[in-house]
Amino acid sequence: MKDITLKEIATKLGISITTVSKALKNYPDVSAKTKQAVIDLAQNLHYTPNSFAVNLRTKESKTIGLIIPEVVHHFFSNVVNALIDEAEKNGYLVIILQSNESLALEKKQVELLIKKRVDGIIISLSNESNNDDHLKEIINRNIPFVMFDKINKLITCSKVIIDDQKAAFNAVQHLIDNGCKKIVHIRGPLNPQNAIDRYIGYKKALEKNNIPFDTKLVYTCETVTFQEGIDFAKQIIKDHPDVDGIFAITDLVAVGVLSYFNDNKIKVPQQVAVIGFSNWFMSQVLTPKLSTVDQPSHEMGIESFNLLLEEMNCHKEGIPFTPRTIELDTSIIIRESSIKI
Amino acid sequence: MKDITLKEIATKLGISITTVSKALKNYPDVSAKTKQAVIDLAQNLHYTPNSFAVNLRTKESKTIGLIIPEVVHHFFSNVVNALIDEAEKNGYLVIILQSNESLALEKKQVELLIKKRVDGIIISLSNESNNDDHLKEIINRNIPFVMFDKINKLITCSKVIIDDQKAAFNAVQHLIDNGCKKIVHIRGPLNPQNAIDRYIGYKKALEKNNIPFDTKLVYTCETVTFQEGIDFAKQIIKDHPDVDGIFAITDLVAVGVLSYFNDNKIKVPQQVAVIGFSNWFMSQVLTPKLSTVDQPSHEMGIESFNLLLEEMNCHKEGIPFTPRTIELDTSIIIRESSIKI
Repeated sequence: MKDITLKEIATKLGISITTVSKALKNYPDVSAKTKQAVIDLAQNLHYTPNSFAVNLRTKESKTIGLIIPEVVHHFFSNVVNALIDEAEKNGYLVIILQSNESLALEKKQVELLIKKRVDGIIISLSNESNNDDHLKEIINRNIPFVMFDKINKLITCSKVIIDDQKAAFNAVQHLIDNGCKKIVHIRGPLNPQNAIDRYIGYKKALEKNNIPFDTKLVYTCETVTFQEGIDFAKQIIKDHPDVDGIFAITDLVAVGVLSYFNDNKIKVPQQVAVIGFSNWFMSQVLTPKLSTVDQPSHEMGIESFNLLLEEMNCHKEGIPFTPRTIELDTSIIIRESSIKI
Repeated sequence: MKDITLKEIATKLGISITTVSKALKNYPDVSAKTKQAVIDLAQNLHYTPNSFAVNLRTKESKTIGLIIPEVVHHFFSNVVNALIDEAEKNGYLVIILQSNESLALEKKQVELLIKKRVDGIIISLSNESNNDDHLKEIINRNIPFVMFDKINKLITCSKVIIDDQKAAFNAVQHLIDNGCKKIVHIRGPLNPQNAIDRYIGYKKALEKNNIPFDTKLVYTCETVTFQEGIDFAKQIIKDHPDVDGIFAITDLVAVGVLSYFNDNKIKVPQQVAVIGFSNWFMSQVLTPKLSTVDQPSHEMGIESFNLLLEEMNCHKEGIPFTPRTIELDTSIIIRESSIKI
C-alpha cells in the first residue's frame, strides 16, 4: 500500500502542508472547520504519521530490547509478562530475543539492538556469559541499560536482583532443621553469578551447622533441564545411597529428581527431602508438592522496566543518571517434599 | 551520546561522503587503503548506520508484531520461542504484546503496531474477540497478516491451525474406548473458534457412539485457569457423582481437576478418567500422568512466521499474494490418567 503523505492531504484540500500538520496536532490557529476536513480526509485515506520520520526527528524509537536466556521457562515468562505490560502502559514496545544460553547469540543480539537504535536494553545473561565486551559496548554508547537476575557484577549499570546466597542458605537450613545430615547440592553451571551465589549459600549453611562440606556431594548442571534432574537423581542414589536431602538449583531440575524418585519408589521426603528454587507453577501440583524458594518474577519485571525508564528519561533530558541496584526479597515455600519431622 | 554521521568521518579523513558510504558498503571503486581507514575510524567512533533513516529510505522496519493472549502459558510460550528464533534467522525482530484475553487491549495493540509501521503482524486472538474491525483494518492497509490457533474464520488472511474438531473427537473417542459412559466436557469460553470446535468434536464423538448428549454435562470456563479446574471438579462430583470421564479444554484446567481429585481421594483413572488438551510440560510429571492431545506449538510458530515472510516478500516486490491456511497434525498422548482398561 502506498503511504499517504501530508502533501497529498494538503493538495486534495487545497491548503498548505503546514496547515495540515497543524490541524492534525490540534493547533489553535487552524479553524475548527479546516481541522475537521483534514481529520476526515486523513481517516478516509488511512493516514498514519510515518513513525520512521518521527523516530528520525525525535531520535526516540519508543522501543526497548529485552534479551533473556529462554522464553519457555516459568521464571522468565513471568518476568516478560510483567515487563511488557508495564512497558506498554508507559508507551514503550518491547522486542524480545532469547540467547538460548549462548554467549555468541547474546553478543549478536546486543549488536542487533544497538543497530536498531532501541531506547534501552534489558538483559538477563546466558549461562555462557563470561565475557563482557558486548555489555561494555552498551555502556560506551551511553544506551540506558538494566541487568536482572543473571547479572555481571563487573559491569556498572542498574540491576534488579535477589540475594541468592541468603535464599540458598535458608533453603539448606530448612533441610537441616528437618533432620537432613547428608545434603546434596545440584548446582547450576560455573559461570552465572546466581549459580555461584546459591552454591556459596549451600556451603555457608553446612558450615554454620557444623556439617562438613564434601565436594563429592555437589553435582553440576550443564543444561539445567528436567532430564538432568532425572539423570542426577539416578547417579546420586548410586553414589550416595544414604543421601537424605537434595537442594536443586531450580524447580525444573528438582522436578526431574522427584520424577525419578517417584518412578523408582524412593520416598520423598521420608528417605530424601527435596527443595527447589524459583517456585515454578507446576511445583504446587506435583505429588509430593515441591518445597522451593519463591523468586519475585513479576516484581522483577516491573522494577527492571521502571529502572530503565528512569534512565531513559534522564537520557532524554540530558540529566546524569547514577545506576542503582534493587534487591528484592525471597521467601521459602514449605510444601510436602521437605517435611520429615 | 551524539550520533556519528558519514559527514564527520568524511571530514576527519578529508574525503567525500560518497567515498565513505561506498567504502562502508565495500564498493570495488574505493581503494583497499581508503576502505581500511574508513572502517577503522568508523569503529573507533562507534559509527552505526542510522536505522531510522534506513527505515525511512527502504520503508521497511525489519520488525514484526506478535499479539498473543498471554506469555505465561505453555502453548504460547512455545510458539513464541520458535517464532522469534525463526524471525531472527531471517533478519527480523519481533515486538511481543499480550492481549490478556481483552478485546479492547487487542484493538489498541493492533493500532499501535500499525502506527509503528511493522512489516507484518501475527495474532492469536483473545477469548473476547467477537468483533473484527481491527483485523479488517490490517487487511485494508495491506499489511502482511497471519492468524494462528485462535483465529477468526471470517477474515481472509493466512492462517495456521489444527483441526480442533477432529482432535477433540479423538480425545473423547479414547475415553469411550476405555469404558467411559458419562463424560463431562469442561469447555472453553463461547467466542473462540477453537473452543467451539472442540465442543463440536465432543458432541460428534458421543453421537457416533450412541451416547446421548446432555447439556448438563457441559461446563463452561470463563478464565480457563487452574483454579477453574479445581472449582469445576468439585461442582462436577457434586452434580454427577457417577461421572466416569472428563475431557477438559486444556491441560491447565485438567491439572486443576486432577489436583482436586488427588486432594479428595477421588481415584483417577479408576473412578474418573481425565484427558486434557495441548500437552503442557507438567502433564508428564503429575501423579497420575495426564493424557492429552499434543498440539504442535513449535511447528505453529515456525509456519506462522514463514507464511508471514512469504507475504512480506511478495509485498516488497509488488507481487500479489494469495492467503493460505496451513493445518497441522495433532496426536493423542495416552498416559495414566485415562487408561481404565
